[in-house]
Parts: sequence; C-alpha cells; structure tokens
Amino acid sequence: MQMLTLGIDIGGTNTAFGVVNEEGVILEQGEMPTKGYAQPEDYVTALYQSVQLTISQDYLSQVKGIGVGAPSANYYQGTIEHAPNMEWRGIIPIGRLIEEQFKLPVKVTNDANAAAMGEMMYGAARGMKDFIMVTLGTGVGSGFIANGNLIYGHDGFAGELGHVNAVRNGRACGCGRKGCLEAYTSATGVVKTAIEMLASDTQSLLHQHQSLDSKLIFDAALAGDTLAKDVFEYTGQILGQTLADAVAITSPEAIILFGGLAKAGELIFEPTRRAMEENLLNLYQGKIKLLASELKESDAAITGAAALIG
Amino acid sequence: MQMLTLGIDIGGTNTAFGVVNEEGVILEQGEMPTKGYAQPEDYVTALYQSVQLTISQDYLSQVKGIGVGAPSANYYQGTIEHAPNMEWRGIIPIGRLIEEQFKLPVKVTNDANAAAMGEMMYGAARGMKDFIMVTLGTGVGSGFIANGNLIYGHDGFAGELGHVNAVRNGRACGCGRKGCLEAYTSATGVVKTAIEMLASDTQSLLHQHQSLDSKLIFDAALAGDTLAKDVFEYTGQILGQTLADAVAITSPEAIILFGGLAKAGELIFEPTRRAMEENLLNLYQGKIKLLASELKESDAAITGAAALIG
Repeated sequence: MQMLTLGIDIGGTNTAFGVVNEEGVILEQGEMPTKGYAQPEDYVTALYQSVQLTISQDYLSQVKGIGVGAPSANYYQGTIEHAPNMEWRGIIPIGRLIEEQFKLPVKVTNDANAAAMGEMMYGAARGMKDFIMVTLGTGVGSGFIANGNLIYGHDGFAGELGHVNAVRNGRACGCGRKGCLEAYTSATGVVKTAIEMLASDTQSLLHQHQSLDSKLIFDAALAGDTLAKDVFEYTGQILGQTLADAVAITSPEAIILFGGLAKAGELIFEPTRRAMEENLLNLYQGKIKLLASELKESDAAITGAAALIG
Repeated sequence: MQMLTLGIDIGGTNTAFGVVNEEGVILEQGEMPTKGYAQPEDYVTALYQSVQLTISQDYLSQVKGIGVGAPSANYYQGTIEHAPNMEWRGIIPIGRLIEEQFKLPVKVTNDANAAAMGEMMYGAARGMKDFIMVTLGTGVGSGFIANGNLIYGHDGFAGELGHVNAVRNGRACGCGRKGCLEAYTSATGVVKTAIEMLASDTQSLLHQHQSLDSKLIFDAALAGDTLAKDVFEYTGQILGQTLADAVAITSPEAIILFGGLAKAGELIFEPTRRAMEENLLNLYQGKIKLLASELKESDAAITGAAALIG
C-alpha cells in the first residue's frame, strides 16, 4: 500500500490531473477541458467523472489527499478569487467543492506555489529550506520558501514577483500598472523587447517572420543572430537586477527558474546571473545559486499540486 | 516565580541590557561601553560583571535565557560577522562566548529582527503572523515575519530592505552600491535630500542652519516650511514605492515603521501610504496597514532582544 496523492492543475483552458507517488512519479494521468461549464459545481462533477474513468480504482483507493494548483488561488480559503482568465466570476470555493465531491482532504494554491512545493519535494530544491521559485511562462509567477514553508502572506496571495517594479515608469503590464517584471521577462515580454529592438535594426534574421514568438527568438539567438542575443541579454539584465532585490528580502540558498524562458539555458542564465551578482549587496555575492528547474514541465503542475499534501 | 529573560543590545558604541518579564516590561536595566575591549572575550567578561552589579540577584536567578541584538548578526551561527562599525574584525562567536560566561541559552540576531520580534510579542504586531518591520534610523533595517516566524534566510542574513534598489543608478549608498532605499530614507538620506533641494531654493527656513539634521527638517516642516515638507513628501514617495514591491513578495497584514523618521507621524506616513497604494498590485490595495511601532524606542532594542527567547 503506497501513499498516493491526486494532483490537479486547473488551467484557464484545460485541467490536467494525475495520481502521484511519494517519489513524485505520475502513475496515471488524464485531462479535460476547464471551459464550458456554466457553474463550478458542474465542472467539479465532470472532473470527478473524468478522474473515475481515467485512473484505475486500485490507485484511487490509495489516494490520501488532493492538491490543487489554480490561478488566483487563495491557500487559506481554498478559493479561486477573481481569476481574469476563467469563465466563473467572483470567489469560487473550489477546495470545498472538490472535497465534498471526492470525500478527501484538499489543499489549493496557485501554480507557482505548487511548482515551488514540487521542486522542494522532487526537484532541484530537495533538502533546501530557503529558496525562490520563478516561473517564466505566459506570465511570471513565483513561490517563496522560507524556513521550509511557503510564504503565503496574511491573505494567501504572497509571491507576486512578476508584479514587482522592474523598470520605474516602464512598459505597460497586463495588471494595469507600469514596469512590472512580467512585462519584460514573460514570453510576451520577450517578444515585445524583440519588436522594440527590431524597430531600429535592419540585419536581424527575425525580420523574416510575420509574427514573433519566444521560440523563434531563441532559435535566432542559437543561430548567432546579434539582435536575438541582445534580447536575452536585456531580459537577463532586468531579471537579474530584480532577483538581487528579492535576495535582499529572503536571502535564499537558490533561485530556481522554470518555464519556457528557462529552457533557453545559458542564453538567459548567463546575463541573469551576471546582473544579479552586479546588483547584490556584498553580503550575498557569490552565495546564491541560480538553478534550472528539475521538474519535467508537462508534469510539474500535477506533481507540484500533489506536493501540497505532505 | 516569573519567566524572565535578559535582553542585550550590542551597539557599536554602547551596550544596553535589561531583565524583561513576560509582558515585555523592563524590570531593571543598565549599560556599559562596547568599545575599548581588545578581545571580545574581555568585553563579555566585563558585560557579565556589569550585569551582576546592576541587576538584582533575585531577578537574575529567574532568567531563563538571553536574547542578543547586534549589528551584522547571524542567527544560525550566533555570530557577529564583519560588522563595519565594531572594533573586532572578522567573525565573532558572540553567542557562544555569552553562553559560556552566563551559563544560559543564548539567541543572537540583528537589531531590526529583534525589533520585529519585540513588536510581535509586545507591540503593534501582537496577534499578527505576517508583517514587515522597517527601522528608519541611522541606517534602514527590516525584519520580515511570515507564518509567525522571522525570515532568516539560508545564511541568517535575510531582511536587508535598506539595500533594495529604490532608484536605479541613484544616490551612492554606504554599502558601495547606488540607489539603495537606505540612501534616501535613513536619517542621513533625509538630510541629503534636503541639501539637494536647498541648492535650488532661497526661501526655506533651513538656510538658517550651518549643518542640518533630520530633527531640524522635521521642526521646519511643522513650522510650515514648504521645502521641509517636500523633503518628507519625496522620502515617503521613495519609501512607499519600495514597500509596494516588498508587499508583492510577502503580502503582510501590516508594515510597521520604527525609529526617528517614523516619529514624524503623518508627515511621513501620509506620503508613504499614498505612494505605496499607488504602486500596489490591485490584489493588495487597501489591505495593508501602515502602522507606527508601539515599542518605546529607548527600550525596544532590549525588549526585542529578549523576545528572541520564546
């Protein structure tokens, strides 16, 4: 008899779920759409049916608890609150609904916090008690671990490093403010940087494309394109100087980068590390590891959510 | 029989100590110079003698532990490390030395962390589990409490909000970097702001003084001096926007301001609160209390150090 957990990753479009063992291995998994359910109750009923159909009863009978990763999630309340990318408005008691349907204990947190827990239990942060997880995707999220615990804050909404000011009066951010880290180091932020740089350039390979994405910029940089390399240099500069300030607050053993941009390897790690070191208080210089996530990206959201169940 | 603790505040110049009861009241206290001892061992011997002479044996016999606040203190190691304002160089095992001399358990942390603990046990943060303590004095220090515990970081040096970048490529800071919060919101930072503003002004009352200090600027602002009021407005602007970024990391219930500048009351609180709210992610707006410390300044270092002993 194993100690299994069910990890559920609720995205704006799709929901992925899987049964995870104590080593963080997904034994069975499935997915279903998140959209198309008028009420969250209908969605949870469909989720229950989907799990029953996909996961074998033998595994399900061993599940001790359910961890849920969701956007705009409040850990303390087990709610999704005013999520901009979901169909349901207001405050959704998703934890309670799942608990009632599945008759199992449920913990809910946001995707980046779940990723941080996953990294601590199964990934690059094993054995660490103080680290920062930074997820570089469509948005920029973060999870801060201090003394071995997630920092949830008084309201469950701590860890919004993506909305720390990186450039005073800088680029417009989706949140309505200016100069947030997310406006520069998310996938869309990187594309914006490239477009800005292309306006005063004639040489770059990137001019060949009608529309850009971060993968094209990465490929161009690998092919030696100077402008594309400058995009990573600039992005790393902004990321590194913002990380230096976060270090001054929580003094982590490591900062772990996860997500699309992190996969660019030294193209993004080298300028980020350099800018961070240049901006660190001497007390911290040379002491903070900048690491790549060891979670498999497709599995990370499920294993991270599962890691919420100690 | 009470549960008493001995709080020791080691400053660069003087050391203050006192016996503190469970309500945070100092029952007896004394002080002695920190300077003038070639070796830390000599200092600790003198400290022991001074405590024995000053504090009654009745109280001393009830002391269960010793809390020490010191500059550049490492909580995990119980050491003072490379303190720029002390006579002893290198790493001083102050916790071990005091423990051996007094035969009592000892905990060591820096002044701002000690103040945060004092505020949580006896001050404005009673009952709170997530808050930020900001000490505005000769320097700017901070202590971050999350989940009811101090964030020490992996090395014991977390909480250096004074050295977060407030103005990119800004004013030179004592730490050798540019634009740190401390360069603007410390007592000397406020004086620098006044001097900069006076260079293009002819009206201010502050022109009457040969040399400025923060108290003179405060008095001039109270007397209606426009430039002096602008100094507080500018200082609050810088402080508020930096606090907004700290909120995005730990989402505290409150931020507590302590020290000389905090005593300027609404002169500094109003612009700080306004700038913080203007720069907060919508998720946090209107939710974070900005409070004045409730610790008596002269006692705070001793009671804060004592609060380290649960």
